[in-house]
Amino acid sequence: MNKEMILEKQRQAVDILNEKGIDMWMTFVRETGNIKDPMIDMIVGTNATWHSAFIITKTGKTIAIVGSLEEANMKIVGTYQTIIPYLKSVKEDLLKTLEEINPNKIAVNFSRNSSLADGLTHGMYLELMDILEGTPYADRLISSEEIIAALRGRKSEAELAIMKEAIVKTLEIFDEVTGFIRPGVTEKEIAEFVFGKVEERGYGYAWEKEYCPSVFTGPDTAGAHAGPTDKKVEPGHVINMDFGIKYKGYCSDLQRTWYVLRPGETEPPEEVLRGFNVIRDSIQLAAKAIKPGAVAWEVDAVARNYITSHGYEEYPHGLGHQVGRLAHDGGALLAPKWERYGNLPYMTLEESQVFTIEPRLTIEGYGIATMEEEVVIRKDGVEFLSPPQTEIYLIKP
Amino acid sequence: MNKEMILEKQRQAVDILNEKGIDMWMTFVRETGNIKDPMIDMIVGTNATWHSAFIITKTGKTIAIVGSLEEANMKIVGTYQTIIPYLKSVKEDLLKTLEEINPNKIAVNFSRNSSLADGLTHGMYLELMDILEGTPYADRLISSEEIIAALRGRKSEAELAIMKEAIVKTLEIFDEVTGFIRPGVTEKEIAEFVFGKVEERGYGYAWEKEYCPSVFTGPDTAGAHAGPTDKKVEPGHVINMDFGIKYKGYCSDLQRTWYVLRPGETEPPEEVLRGFNVIRDSIQLAAKAIKPGAVAWEVDAVARNYITSHGYEEYPHGLGHQVGRLAHDGGALLAPKWERYGNLPYMTLEESQVFTIEPRLTIEGYGIATMEEEVVIRKDGVEFLSPPQTEIYLIKP
Repeated sequence: MNKEMILEKQRQAVDILNEKGIDMWMTFVRETGNIKDPMIDMIVGTNATWHSAFIITKTGKTIAIVGSLEEANMKIVGTYQTIIPYLKSVKEDLLKTLEEINPNKIAVNFSRNSSLADGLTHGMYLELMDILEGTPYADRLISSEEIIAALRGRKSEAELAIMKEAIVKTLEIFDEVTGFIRPGVTEKEIAEFVFGKVEERGYGYAWEKEYCPSVFTGPDTAGAHAGPTDKKVEPGHVINMDFGIKYKGYCSDLQRTWYVLRPGETEPPEEVLRGFNVIRDSIQLAAKAIKPGAVAWEVDAVARNYITSHGYEEYPHGLGHQVGRLAHDGGALLAPKWERYGNLPYMTLEESQVFTIEPRLTIEGYGIATMEEEVVIRKDGVEFLSPPQTEIYLIKP
Repeated sequence: MNKEMILEKQRQAVDILNEKGIDMWMTFVRETGNIKDPMIDMIVGTNATWHSAFIITKTGKTIAIVGSLEEANMKIVGTYQTIIPYLKSVKEDLLKTLEEINPNKIAVNFSRNSSLADGLTHGMYLELMDILEGTPYADRLISSEEIIAALRGRKSEAELAIMKEAIVKTLEIFDEVTGFIRPGVTEKEIAEFVFGKVEERGYGYAWEKEYCPSVFTGPDTAGAHAGPTDKKVEPGHVINMDFGIKYKGYCSDLQRTWYVLRPGETEPPEEVLRGFNVIRDSIQLAAKAIKPGAVAWEVDAVARNYITSHGYEEYPHGLGHQVGRLAHDGGALLAPKWERYGNLPYMTLEESQVFTIEPRLTIEGYGIATMEEEVVIRKDGVEFLSPPQTEIYLIKP
């Protein structure tokens, strides 16, 4: 991320602090080369080795308290107005800075709900509590999750333009895959074909290459979040692929479904079409439920209920997540009220957030039907960033 | 890291658990694609999206409790004997597993001292405390720092062989840099030259490319941990470069110092030679103090005192750190007893640990003299993994 984009995000953060009535936001980290707070790239733009505090205030001040050896680097990076170097311990400078700001509400980088707002490790939390002992500040800490959900969630038109480009380039690869799939090729060979395209064009991967793309052919596959195997494409298979690129710092995340015609077939069997259509229609129904102010789990329920009402099992995951600089980005999550999702399903949706919609169902004996589209929330509803798949792609042997 | 190496490290962990009298070690994580516990690559080998517990017991059992969608992937990766998938919440399966093991001491991935043992975020700590509420286990948690310091610190001969290779390949690039440096080239151009060599040979960078290499020419440079600038090499400059590669999963980390002769000079001015020699000799003295059982800060003090006793300012950092899969690896740190280093300077050194030795001093008006060597601790002292620089490299214009 370049300096100008970081300064832009910091200004956006100041607006959010004012909107939420939070006096300052502190990201407290160390050794980000070993374990990196997910916000560092967006609001700092370089690594920190020793205990470091990156502070943004409601009044628009930005302050970095860093080990003295990193002062020069912070100046060169140029993303913080005030750089306070320390030699032996961060404590004194941090306390002095807090006294000067005297914040009533201090948002800190921890969250039970959102991994993106949870970069403060527990050891560093204990360090911070020690530093704040005997001061009034320890009782003023709150989670930064609201700030981060807003900051990462609300996309500017410039960000959306890049994300649309990324989607176009991703769908080009999906189209090329349609030309490549044929009986006898393995899931791994399809993935290798995709790697070739990604690397020849200089894109990055939206998530770990190990399962980017994920490719699943036929019945009894590994299911989501597994890497491609040596399983071969056969006539009568439903195939799906989950894939995204990283392009100019932003991720795409899409899925498409194919069917491999058997000898004599000119179209898929009825049960395949039926499964495909239920997924396709559930996406449109869910998209209609997405608008500013909608509650995330209610959107998930629309697709989930539509699918189960047609006699299929419910999908064992959420309907969709936000996308941005990370494939799993933002706060609110279109997911059921399951404990593992924390409060994210209870959040309300906001304008300018980008969500995936990705239900799935199993077509017994054939494979898994799943599409994943990306939508952006506008004032009155959604705009599809990806042109939705409306018909199952056919592979003719 | 491949499966065999992960299984090897897990076996080593079981030995360490027995040695330290710890019943089980649990690494508790989520969304490792967003923020990754530093041990995941070494003991798991794939990402985890939902609340996941990776457990290794003193009796040699390995158990992964993961979101059901990741069961298939964990089976394919094959690094855990038992995989327990859950749908809605990790709680029930985690408690059941704890009841079966009934551990008295549970090492968990948090640490005030070591970032490598501190992958548990504070939000996830709060989640864990909720899960354990009302059970006897909450009071049995200890930091995993001792396990991780041993596991990452103790290198096998196979690991050392790779690290030696990495050093040889790194020093080849340093030699090529000696041929490239001349008055008029900038720090950035030297870095670009290095990038070219690294990429043509397919190596990785030991730390962020942004300052790998770091290059500093002449007086008043940015100092350590900053990226190269447009500053030009001039006659009369002392130049230093900090650089390492990632090779077969292991890092090198070395520094070398050059002097650019001025017209008429055939050797550096006396004050340059004196500064260089003080650094060179302080490294040898510190190396002699390194042996199993030595206390880390005492080794730092040897070099620190030698340098200040010669009238130079003390270096504003530790003398050396461990190296391994990460450039800053392991537990014990050769550093002074400054608060920012936590307990790491108080740890004792162990056989088979690899340390850097990297003191620095400023030669007023010329630049910074600093060398960095790598040593491995043997039974009675150290073996230099890098052949130490004994004379300042001369650039003849």
